[in-house]
Amino acid sequence: MHRIKYAPYKDKVQSAEKASLLIKNHHILGVSGFTKAGDSKAVLPKVAERALHEELKVTVLSGASLGYDTDANLAKNGALQKRMPFQADATLRKSINNHEVLYVDQHLGQTADMLQKIDSFKIDVAIIEAVSITEDGYIVPTTSVGNSPIFVEKADKVIIEVNTSFPESLAGIHDIKLLKKQPHREIIPILNSDTRIGDSFIKVNPEKVAAIVYTEIPDSPAVISAPDEKTEAISKHILSFLEKEVDEGRLTESLLPLQAGIGKTANAILSGFTNSRFKNLTMYSEVLQDSTFDLIDSGKLLFASASSITVTQSCSDKIFNDFEKYKSKLLLRPQNISNAAEVISRLGVIGINTAIEFDIYGNVNSTHITGTKMMNGIGGSGDFARNGYLSIFACPSMSKEGRISHIVPMVSHTDHTEHDVDVLVTEQGLADIRGLAPVERARVIIKNCVHPDYREQLLQYFEEAYQLGGHTPHILKNAFSWHEEFKAHGTMKMETFANTTV
Amino acid sequence: MHRIKYAPYKDKVQSAEKASLLIKNHHILGVSGFTKAGDSKAVLPKVAERALHEELKVTVLSGASLGYDTDANLAKNGALQKRMPFQADATLRKSINNHEVLYVDQHLGQTADMLQKIDSFKIDVAIIEAVSITEDGYIVPTTSVGNSPIFVEKADKVIIEVNTSFPESLAGIHDIKLLKKQPHREIIPILNSDTRIGDSFIKVNPEKVAAIVYTEIPDSPAVISAPDEKTEAISKHILSFLEKEVDEGRLTESLLPLQAGIGKTANAILSGFTNSRFKNLTMYSEVLQDSTFDLIDSGKLLFASASSITVTQSCSDKIFNDFEKYKSKLLLRPQNISNAAEVISRLGVIGINTAIEFDIYGNVNSTHITGTKMMNGIGGSGDFARNGYLSIFACPSMSKEGRISHIVPMVSHTDHTEHDVDVLVTEQGLADIRGLAPVERARVIIKNCVHPDYREQLLQYFEEAYQLGGHTPHILKNAFSWHEEFKAHGTMKMETFANTTV
Ligand SMILES: CC(C)(COP(=O)(O)OP(=O)(O)OC[C@H]1O[C@@H](n2cnc3c(N)ncnc32)[C@H](O)[C@@H]1OP(=O)(O)O)[C@@H](O)C(=O)NCCC(=O)NCCS
Ligand SMILES: CC(C)(COP(=O)(O)OP(=O)(O)OC[C@H]1O[C@@H](n2cnc3c(N)ncnc32)[C@H](O)[C@@H]1OP(=O)(O)O)[C@@H](O)C(=O)NCCC(=O)NCCS
Repeated sequence: MHRIKYAPYKDKVQSAEKASLLIKNHHILGVSGFTKAGDSKAVLPKVAERALHEELKVTVLSGASLGYDTDANLAKNGALQKRMPFQADATLRKSINNHEVLYVDQHLGQTADMLQKIDSFKIDVAIIEAVSITEDGYIVPTTSVGNSPIFVEKADKVIIEVNTSFPESLAGIHDIKLLKKQPHREIIPILNSDTRIGDSFIKVNPEKVAAIVYTEIPDSPAVISAPDEKTEAISKHILSFLEKEVDEGRLTESLLPLQAGIGKTANAILSGFTNSRFKNLTMYSEVLQDSTFDLIDSGKLLFASASSITVTQSCSDKIFNDFEKYKSKLLLRPQNISNAAEVISRLGVIGINTAIEFDIYGNVNSTHITGTKMMNGIGGSGDFARNGYLSIFACPSMSKEGRISHIVPMVSHTDHTEHDVDVLVTEQGLADIRGLAPVERARVIIKNCVHPDYREQLLQYFEEAYQLGGHTPHILKNAFSWHEEFKAHGTMKMETFANTTV
Repeated sequence: MHRIKYAPYKDKVQSAEKASLLIKNHHILGVSGFTKAGDSKAVLPKVAERALHEELKVTVLSGASLGYDTDANLAKNGALQKRMPFQADATLRKSINNHEVLYVDQHLGQTADMLQKIDSFKIDVAIIEAVSITEDGYIVPTTSVGNSPIFVEKADKVIIEVNTSFPESLAGIHDIKLLKKQPHREIIPILNSDTRIGDSFIKVNPEKVAAIVYTEIPDSPAVISAPDEKTEAISKHILSFLEKEVDEGRLTESLLPLQAGIGKTANAILSGFTNSRFKNLTMYSEVLQDSTFDLIDSGKLLFASASSITVTQSCSDKIFNDFEKYKSKLLLRPQNISNAAEVISRLGVIGINTAIEFDIYGNVNSTHITGTKMMNGIGGSGDFARNGYLSIFACPSMSKEGRISHIVPMVSHTDHTEHDVDVLVTEQGLADIRGLAPVERARVIIKNCVHPDYREQLLQYFEEAYQLGGHTPHILKNAFSWHEEFKAHGTMKMETFANTTV
């Protein structure tokens, strides 16, 4: 019980099962958790369980995706009315695409603001994971901060899950500040990744704390596939591009703070920095993956600010067995600060994110397969792409044995517009489209990024459209023909081109 | 000559014709001017003239659109290689859509940053309109600031056009600050529309000033059609919506700083505030139109910050005949500050912009007719829509005697994504789509915003798509069928629906 330093809470300790009874049908929940880190591992799973036997449908707001099978079980058991602002679970995804769950896919930096602006998401219960509780009854979060501060502020009742699987020494890496609603919104005075502006705990009115539950379940570990030929090629193209920026005097060898998305590609790109000439790097990102800690180990990375730490089992063991080594180099912030337009633009973050597909004019789809089916969500990619110093999007040129080209005539859903994308890269090469008109962009994207199997086919689309005129040449009736072809015949390769591949 | 208070400049005074010879083939020009206000009226027109007789092709960067026929003549005479970041001229538009001129359509808040990041637009000559020149040789701009400070900073040579048609008392309304490149970027410490953070002039190294030209040509006046039934209905819907926000305690009667786009609709909406119950209003916008001054006259508007003043002849006469009345209520700023994400989000600006079309899921097209032909450009609409407290887009439900529906199944070009749009409004009604999933948005948009002539047709598209499943239901092969129908048969009304209209 020594993790709870506020005596009046001690008789609120109860089982997860009992605490879960605070959650009623039609409730709106605000839960901790960001890309699997620091999520509710005791109470929220019980909500899913209860929904098997009783009428229990709730709206769940989180930081980002949750760990284990929590989202899957909530969806499978019919416990979800609405889910936001992000998810990355195969079962939930299916429920969303079947219209069984309503999903609101939001810029991760904007959910907290939304809660201040509209009343439709009055939080009934917040469920927040903590590593400990301070003398004043305040919450020290675990491996993520996410939207927890605003959930706690807005909630009628708060359930705290004290997780003893994390070392108590996690306390101190959080930097928590609640921003006031406009017109009282403050300057966010962050001038460097390591500027500390808030408290190391989440303030809460102790009277709202309705239950405290102990758990010792660790975060579900990230699973990251090792870099492969393609992701390594992508990483090399980006490093060469950045080296040129340095050689020509536009950036220094410490670049500007880096942000990288999640997944294999992002991790591989970041890992590439280990053996680069860059030094004294910093990160101002939303998620820290294994590569961040490798970069710290190699002495390349001085400091990393984010909203969560999402790492593999072996990386987790490494960090938490020697946490003092990393502690002074890390800050975890609420996601409306890690992803704040104000800070990202001031610091000049270099944002590197992954695309589902992009088009010849530089528009990017991050969310929808074939324009209709939700994959995960936009996450923070838009916060960084719009406001950063450089907005880089990467993906392989082809997938599924070449049946999908990730570069298409027109994206089937737009998450990042032509106005917000600076650099596009595949294993084939990189296109720097800054300052280019659409037709100039098309030529460099087709030349540098497209797989040779699709180059001629794409060029033909472009040249035909070009003949028809228009600032952004398109043939509307064929703009999605590649997607339709894939649906109809399982490949984007057109008949007439199928045998002309190199 | 008393407008030039720096003696060494006096022998640089010359004719526009002579000054224009400083501009050579392939030069890159940075020119003052923002939505017709404060543009070059002497030298740049001479460049267009010269291009009739000699090989002279230049790249022109401005604040936004230019006045008179300058853009038209540059285009017509083949003087333009590339144009950015905005234009609104029928002749230039044609040249852009014919691929005679390359056009880069950019967020107006981001051009200055781009110039600090890449070298491809090294400014050879800046041409800046001034109302006077200070004792230190610094430039006092006229009715706009635009990108002039960064152009002057980056230019090899500077030409100043001293325009005696404006009263010298304009001096004092400008608030100029150059932001440093990252990692040295400063906080922009604006806490209210009226916070002053810089100088009232543009600093320039006098050695770069290569020529000074006198003109007395006034700004070309704005021409705004009077409000009509539709724009008045739109205005009413917005006012009722804002009243409800106040009644339910989410906003106060002074709302939050307003931004409004240009044109008839925006002007009508803003005019609507004159007879509203709102009071002590402020504006943090990019352009000030007639309605701003009417609101000041009526005592409703306390202060307006923007990057330009673009008004009709009669409004111009009113303002400049009694400028002291307005002076203390105005500030003109560089457009990377009037449109800064940092300030717009801190202040919580209510952004009201006009759409070319929007779709049932809340994506907005601000720029392209039928997906290919550039109209004007995105302007600052994205800066405000992404970062403001409320992002409102308005347009009529139909145009061209009902042959065009402005609400379509899928926008033919995306400038503002579903993640960035809060409220959509036509003369039919208003849809508040905050916190809604795509299928919820579709239902409220079809019900509230679509003209009855198109409602059934649009509902049918949605219902058919819904049957196919997917988070964002679409039938890709029909997504642009309305646009194709319009191209083929001059109307978006489908055969089967043509006779079912109410
Ligand atoms: C875009 C995103 C889905 C890519 O993730 P990833 O793990 O690198 O991608 P993968 O290549 O494994 O693709 C995931 C799946 O989508 C499929 N897919 C990807 N692009 C596709 C396309 N254009 N058409 C059809 N399927 C596609 C892949 O084939 C794969 O399917 P599989 O699981 O059946 O093999 C992911 O980065 C994402 O969700 N991004 C948005 C959020 C974000 O950017 N956050 C930023 C900060 S965290
Ligand atoms: C969107 C925008 C073009 C609307 O301007 P407006 O003057 O209110 O619009 P109008 O209704 O007069 O439309 C302009 C023309 O485009 C045509 N048009 C508009 N929407 C159309 C559509 N969906 N399909 C075909 N034509 C369309 C109109 O019919 C009209 O044509 P006409 O001149 O032949 O009559 C204008 O607001 C704009 O350029 N916005 C982008 C920039 C911006 O938002 N800046 C914000 C801050 S200044």
